[in-house]
Amino acid sequence: MTLYENLAEAIETRIRQGLYRPGDRLPSVRSLGIEHGVSLSTVQQAYRVLEDKRLAVPRAKSGYYVPETRQVPELPQATRGTQRPVDVSQWEQVLDLMSEEPSEHLTQFGRGRPDIDSPTLKPLTRALSRFGRQQSLSGLTYGSIQGNLQLREQIARLMLDSGCQTPASELIITNGCHEALSTAIRALCVPGDVVAVDSPAFHGVMQALKGFGLKALELPTDPIEGISLEALEMALEQWPIKVLQLTPSCNNPLGYSMPDHKKRALLALAQRYDLAIIEDDVYGDLAYRYPRPRTIKSFDEDGRVLLCSSFSKSIAPGLRTGWIAPGRYYDQVLHMKYMGSGPTATLPQLAMSAFIEGGHFDPHLRRMRHLYQRSRDQMIEWVGRYFPENAKASRPEGSFMLWVELEEGFDSLRLNKLLRPKGIQIAPGSIFSAAGKYRNCLRMSYAARPTPQIEAAVREVGEVAKTLLTSHD
Amino acid sequence: MTLYENLAEAIETRIRQGLYRPGDRLPSVRSLGIEHGVSLSTVQQAYRVLEDKRLAVPRAKSGYYVPETRQVPELPQATRGTQRPVDVSQWEQVLDLMSEEPSEHLTQFGRGRPDIDSPTLKPLTRALSRFGRQQSLSGLTYGSIQGNLQLREQIARLMLDSGCQTPASELIITNGCHEALSTAIRALCVPGDVVAVDSPAFHGVMQALKGFGLKALELPTDPIEGISLEALEMALEQWPIKVLQLTPSCNNPLGYSMPDHKKRALLALAQRYDLAIIEDDVYGDLAYRYPRPRTIKSFDEDGRVLLCSSFSKSIAPGLRTGWIAPGRYYDQVLHMKYMGSGPTATLPQLAMSAFIEGGHFDPHLRRMRHLYQRSRDQMIEWVGRYFPENAKASRPEGSFMLWVELEEGFDSLRLNKLLRPKGIQIAPGSIFSAAGKYRNCLRMSYAARPTPQIEAAVREVGEVAKTLLTSHD
Ligand SMILES: Cc1ncc(COP(=O)(O)O)c(C=O)c1O
Ligand SMILES: Cc1ncc(COP(=O)(O)O)c(C=O)c1O
Repeated sequence: MTLYENLAEAIETRIRQGLYRPGDRLPSVRSLGIEHGVSLSTVQQAYRVLEDKRLAVPRAKSGYYVPETRQVPELPQATRGTQRPVDVSQWEQVLDLMSEEPSEHLTQFGRGRPDIDSPTLKPLTRALSRFGRQQSLSGLTYGSIQGNLQLREQIARLMLDSGCQTPASELIITNGCHEALSTAIRALCVPGDVVAVDSPAFHGVMQALKGFGLKALELPTDPIEGISLEALEMALEQWPIKVLQLTPSCNNPLGYSMPDHKKRALLALAQRYDLAIIEDDVYGDLAYRYPRPRTIKSFDEDGRVLLCSSFSKSIAPGLRTGWIAPGRYYDQVLHMKYMGSGPTATLPQLAMSAFIEGGHFDPHLRRMRHLYQRSRDQMIEWVGRYFPENAKASRPEGSFMLWVELEEGFDSLRLNKLLRPKGIQIAPGSIFSAAGKYRNCLRMSYAARPTPQIEAAVREVGEVAKTLLTSHD
Repeated sequence: MTLYENLAEAIETRIRQGLYRPGDRLPSVRSLGIEHGVSLSTVQQAYRVLEDKRLAVPRAKSGYYVPETRQVPELPQATRGTQRPVDVSQWEQVLDLMSEEPSEHLTQFGRGRPDIDSPTLKPLTRALSRFGRQQSLSGLTYGSIQGNLQLREQIARLMLDSGCQTPASELIITNGCHEALSTAIRALCVPGDVVAVDSPAFHGVMQALKGFGLKALELPTDPIEGISLEALEMALEQWPIKVLQLTPSCNNPLGYSMPDHKKRALLALAQRYDLAIIEDDVYGDLAYRYPRPRTIKSFDEDGRVLLCSSFSKSIAPGLRTGWIAPGRYYDQVLHMKYMGSGPTATLPQLAMSAFIEGGHFDPHLRRMRHLYQRSRDQMIEWVGRYFPENAKASRPEGSFMLWVELEEGFDSLRLNKLLRPKGIQIAPGSIFSAAGKYRNCLRMSYAARPTPQIEAAVREVGEVAKTLLTSHD
């Protein structure tokens, strides 16, 4: 253990023993330095560790304090799923969310936009600018439908981190993860088919099911471990399930990562029932722990997993650069990709390829993981402080989305309506369910760096939520 | 009539009367100037007119000549269509074509790539570079699903040229015209439906029909006037046709533009049978005559026409910036667009919007129209000179695609195979038919500036074609 870790542990022990109580001022950096005979920067590092653990909070110009209320909201309950396959609804609410252009006058908690202000993205904007200037044999012309080979080779290399040994020749570049998912679904299903999904789940998939005339079977899902395999097995016995679609690593919106052993067990079950799995890994690289969680795909031996992902969350969504590793379904998926939109935009592919090849991907990711983890803790604390007393909140293990559950009967659609005149938008829980469940829940992004303005907006959300609860009593 | 037009007519008359014969040197610019008492630049303008009409060809350092052989290939016959709706085939051949990355070692006659080397595109690369450099609120973030509003406003303005008064609020930005088409088809059809198409037709649409389980009814199509309305009416009586999909202006691959009166008559027919029309206008802006042909959409009063287009042919395909004006089907189409790929890439939209707003679109278009028209004449002449004697060729009224028909039994797939080792690729005719018709035809792009290398490649295609014909006798 290093000096500063030792010191952090010593202070943590004192807090846990109650020597310092909530609201107390902690010893100054100077006095601790003298007491322990260490440098000021060592003390500062120790406080940084305590900050990360939410055991100390800095106040401008007056040092560190034990956080006022360490009342961390409880976890939401496991969800119950639907009893049978259902038709998907809720398009209008999704539309409402997706019609917004980015604006300075809107605090957008609702959409899954990552923080793109990091200096570690500079090499990417430089590459975009450089390739943008070139005219011949450049970003201006059609590429192949498979997508740029150099980029596919870079992605294949990155995928090693999640345990996947997928060669570039088995990857297809897509317009974001969204197109990867919808292409996979269309390649495997015909109208009327049943698709099993985690619940709550990404609204893009829900709407794709709706649009292609498919039925969704929502599986009971635990906010720490993911879908219930028991429930899946029962469902497989009872319904003609064509495909399972899920986001098992850094799930959106619940934030969990299914443990490895459960991923393996799921794959064994899929083999037994000859089930195809569409695995969404769009947030996987943003897991707070390193090495990142393995994908189900990385355990797959017979090509039944179609892995979908993109750089939308790890780098920048406006590029719309995603990919699919469709396993044994390669031919169908390539055909679907061609007829859905033809080749993918060239310029972003060239720029992303140069960005990764230049070694800029990992440093950026490391930085973002760290920032998002700190923002998560801040956001959970704010929700604990400003939201109605019995609000529950998820514990995301990666990404930048918090799921908040309020009491039964709470109406997040009304909440959103009341927030709009105040320039705030959240994602109502119901868009994450085929059947419109989770109306008492909401999803909030904490991608934006925590500032007093963001804190004020979270407090505003909490206060409006409280008025709704009172009026509904 | 201006001075130079008068002069051009006078010379043309002499050529037509046989005063100057094929191969003859025409009078020098000097001597004509003196003879007619006009300036040298007036004579030069007159010769430019004659050049455009292929009545005079310049030879370096020795003035103008009457072209050697004015043997213009005959027009192909009108096509016959299919007797009944059929399932679409031919995917492997399309795949072969679409898997090629652009390369200096391949003379690519097969793909629909425009010329992107024009200096009039400089403002676009500058805009791409400028927006690429920006990090916040920029090309890096998600836009709305409808697409960038400024860009939609610019497109709405451009559409006035084709007679359309469609407000920005009725447009949706897509990943190229390809996604516009496939989105339109999916929004209107369910598997098993019958779609009537012009024939030959764009392979992207054919493959979309294939992928969505739809049947194609290929309509008899005239190489000058487009689809037969009589045949369409008979088909409407006989089959449950859900949608008509066609490219009525600067058709790919045949090159015709349906006359306005026929577009009106088609719309009246569609009204009578309550038929929806998916109109592909991707080449419309590249018509050689000005004003450009009107779209069917411009006559539409009850919103039954879904207009699909993009900047892929007029500007640059790698941007993948297209749009759809879905008329009364707006809601379904927006939903399909969302679930197909989510929002469209942001950076190219910002750059295109700036390019048009800066007034750079029209000058570029004017230049390209002119260049393509001259290349068309050159290509037709080369085909006349180098191809088997009875080769027929289309007379494109716009765009940069020539359709060549060889005698019955000719095999353009074999031709393509034999050409590949020589670094040449053409588009075999069969990919433009659901039923694999037109195997004796090929499509060649003349987008690349005519050079001795291109001429040599055309001659090579002609010579290999001749060997195939001999061997097949
Ligand atoms: C779970 C999940 N999958 C896919 C997507 C879509 O990703 P992309 O923007 O790359 O299409 C999102 C975006 O919100 C998401 O949350
Ligand atoms: C008639 C026609 N429509 C649509 C397209 C596709 O256009 P885009 O590249 O904008 O998707 C093409 C391209 O080859 C075409 O020829």
